Amino acid sequence: MTPEEFEIWGGRVVEWIGSYFREVEAHPVLARVEPGEIRRRLSRDPPLRGQSPSDLLEDFTEVILPGITHWNHPGFLAYFAISGSGPGVLAEMLAAALNVNAMVWRTSPAATELEEHVVGWMAGLLGLSSSTFGVIQDTASSSSLVALAAARHRAYPEVREEGLFGLPRGRIYTSQEAHSSVEKAGIALGLGRRGVQRIGTDADFRMDTGELEEVLDRDRRAGIRPVAIVATVGTTSTTSCDPVADLVALARSYDTWLHVDAAYAGAAALLPECAEHFKGWDEADSVVVNPHKWLFTQVDCSLLFTRHRELLRRTFSLTPEYLRTPEAEEVTQLMDYGLALGRRFRSLKLWFVIRYFGVEGIRARVREHIELARQFAGWVDEDARWLRVAPVPFSTVVFRFAPADVTGKEADELNRSIMEDVNGRGDVFLSHTRVGDRVCLRVSVGHLRTERVHMERCWEQLREAAHERLRPL
Amino acid sequence: MTPEEFEIWGGRVVEWIGSYFREVEAHPVLARVEPGEIRRRLSRDPPLRGQSPSDLLEDFTEVILPGITHWNHPGFLAYFAISGSGPGVLAEMLAAALNVNAMVWRTSPAATELEEHVVGWMAGLLGLSSSTFGVIQDTASSSSLVALAAARHRAYPEVREEGLFGLPRGRIYTSQEAHSSVEKAGIALGLGRRGVQRIGTDADFRMDTGELEEVLDRDRRAGIRPVAIVATVGTTSTTSCDPVADLVALARSYDTWLHVDAAYAGAAALLPECAEHFKGWDEADSVVVNPHKWLFTQVDCSLLFTRHRELLRRTFSLTPEYLRTPEAEEVTQLMDYGLALGRRFRSLKLWFVIRYFGVEGIRARVREHIELARQFAGWVDEDARWLRVAPVPFSTVVFRFAPADVTGKEADELNRSIMEDVNGRGDVFLSHTRVGDRVCLRVSVGHLRTERVHMERCWEQLREAAHERLRPL
Repeated sequence: MTPEEFEIWGGRVVEWIGSYFREVEAHPVLARVEPGEIRRRLSRDPPLRGQSPSDLLEDFTEVILPGITHWNHPGFLAYFAISGSGPGVLAEMLAAALNVNAMVWRTSPAATELEEHVVGWMAGLLGLSSSTFGVIQDTASSSSLVALAAARHRAYPEVREEGLFGLPRGRIYTSQEAHSSVEKAGIALGLGRRGVQRIGTDADFRMDTGELEEVLDRDRRAGIRPVAIVATVGTTSTTSCDPVADLVALARSYDTWLHVDAAYAGAAALLPECAEHFKGWDEADSVVVNPHKWLFTQVDCSLLFTRHRELLRRTFSLTPEYLRTPEAEEVTQLMDYGLALGRRFRSLKLWFVIRYFGVEGIRARVREHIELARQFAGWVDEDARWLRVAPVPFSTVVFRFAPADVTGKEADELNRSIMEDVNGRGDVFLSHTRVGDRVCLRVSVGHLRTERVHMERCWEQLREAAHERLRPL
Repeated sequence: MTPEEFEIWGGRVVEWIGSYFREVEAHPVLARVEPGEIRRRLSRDPPLRGQSPSDLLEDFTEVILPGITHWNHPGFLAYFAISGSGPGVLAEMLAAALNVNAMVWRTSPAATELEEHVVGWMAGLLGLSSSTFGVIQDTASSSSLVALAAARHRAYPEVREEGLFGLPRGRIYTSQEAHSSVEKAGIALGLGRRGVQRIGTDADFRMDTGELEEVLDRDRRAGIRPVAIVATVGTTSTTSCDPVADLVALARSYDTWLHVDAAYAGAAALLPECAEHFKGWDEADSVVVNPHKWLFTQVDCSLLFTRHRELLRRTFSLTPEYLRTPEAEEVTQLMDYGLALGRRFRSLKLWFVIRYFGVEGIRARVREHIELARQFAGWVDEDARWLRVAPVPFSTVVFRFAPADVTGKEADELNRSIMEDVNGRGDVFLSHTRVGDRVCLRVSVGHLRTERVHMERCWEQLREAAHERLRPL
């Protein structure tokens, strides 16, 4: 493609994106296609001869777009709603054009140094020590895996050379509400699912430190080595917050690693009024926060911080001859701090986003999302037939329709049906969870363009769907 | 950013990219900055108030660009030279705008189904069985890690639940020329570096199957369990090709997994004339090929294929309640086949690239790169003072300056100096390796715009630098 052709087609794509942003609410949030429907519309074989960009863009809008669930729709309130932003798109365009691979400093010094710099900004904004080392990974699953690999290395210094064969059993401790990625890391690292011990929670879904201590003691007597404690600030199901400061103290006294998963809620650490939830996290051994969740940065961008830079480096670092460079001693070689060798230029979008919005601009938006969620929680609280099932420390509300005469599995089915009815209407998209063995609904605000009107529409449609479902046939 | 502002600034960025593509040769390939220089030019603190896109773009060109090593420069001949393409940028723009997270089918059915479809196209083009299952990962390091985790699961069915504690020692076998990512996977998976046994190579740097068989027998007698054999087609150092068909047979007879790392050279499997190097790979248990290397697709995009889809799923799959969806039985949930839960819409760029160039267009370009490399190899062979040290099956030439009177470490220093001299001139960028304990230079062709003139310039500058370095003071 010549530069001139790129300018023409790039211009068309920019126009398309502009219209898409303008008209995104014309699309149903959740894609309305059946399994296999998109695939059936794709040409069976790859073309032998090249096709024109106009064919590509036409198929993109005709075939692909109907199969897109619109994370950009302000009515997207499912999972953790995320929001890319205009400056994020601009940065991704530039990163795609440069197409650098920032595995070592030399392969693009600016990509390494901007990453170090912006991650340093973030450490400061999040209230972590300015001497904390940070690195960008793709997702929180990878960040936690890398952090827990470092924790495993600390618990078993011989593991890098010898592996886990013949070593005394070890365990990661985390709450029943922690994300599945902790268990996945346990499997990947060779600790097994049995190597990840779930700890019960209190009435507010926070890890029960008393139970944790009992289990740590029991395991110690049994010769089981503690590998790490994983605390969550903002669990996926209810956004509950484990008592980080207490867990830091416990980790110290049992000489183990404390990892904090704040992939979603970390954004709220920018707000002084949310400081209580993060108390003590500057003492954690590692922390993960995902700017691609609630910080307006395009997928993928996950920040891993650690106070043990050298230990993290020793965990994985292997430098093949072809990547040995004369400046190696003076610079950071980012490949040393993760599993992937190749690395996209991800810091560019985070830099653009922070600068475009400014710190106060980001704070204002995060604050607004929390306010929208609390208003919604208020509506739930005021309606006797609906039950809010968890506190709302951030921008996520967990609740269910709970009329007095519907219980047990019937209530679960009712809530599922209400959710599918609302999702089918196309204006909002919400997801579910299970709390205390009951199916509950979740509304999570994270999109730059979500306003009170979207929350009102969601609430209205939920009540309508509930009414319809309960109406005698 | 309003849609209107996005259109204005997106338009400016497209213009900038167009000019950049037009004028890329005006930049030195290798960035000319000192360690820390870029960072010193970045503002110390993040701004409190938002800044304008014009400030962002100005700093991008003034501060960041001088620290970029230009992978887009047709004189980039280092490592494995990679080439993004215009259609790849267009697709990345659209993916950044949609910003979908394709963890499960429902979160964007088109992202899942297009990935399945395009990966199926690639399986066919690469000569793998059409029933092969494939999935896109970020990099070959991740693909190989995931494949080897599945191999570990097959060797130790209890590992998912119990971990490796108390199990008999196991080992991955790979050649001395294999990539460091195999060892990194061994560390991550808890097998340790001792769990990765390096096997010697023949005169053409291919794994010595006789030695492998001896080691497998010896280990079997010692009760060490084979976890996998990792073959490489196109090693990083010399692009040598392990005898895949023989290794498949060995893997069968020792009841172990055969993984093929063809991250770079896989692109050549599209050419009938290169078929010999891939013979037998359709029988491998897993294969990795990176379209972001030699298939004109932007970083990051690595294809992992396996004949054991269900086993791969069982290795890692964990479905938290919030991701249970009614259609789960009918669809592919891509999160089940890798470590990361979140997933970018990476198939879009691969689809654009294949369609824009067409299969024959891609073949013609890969063929041309091989031809350019062979011409270069011919120039090396004709000059008595230069020594080509490895065959050239693909687009990479490994050689060194070897005047009769310079030997040993002195020869190593001389070659390093020549490389640094040439890299310092800014027209070409090449990298080094070590073959038979001697420092060698590498020239690798993978860029869409690399032409004979760039190869000639590289050769001329190498000879000039060699002449200068040998001239008596």
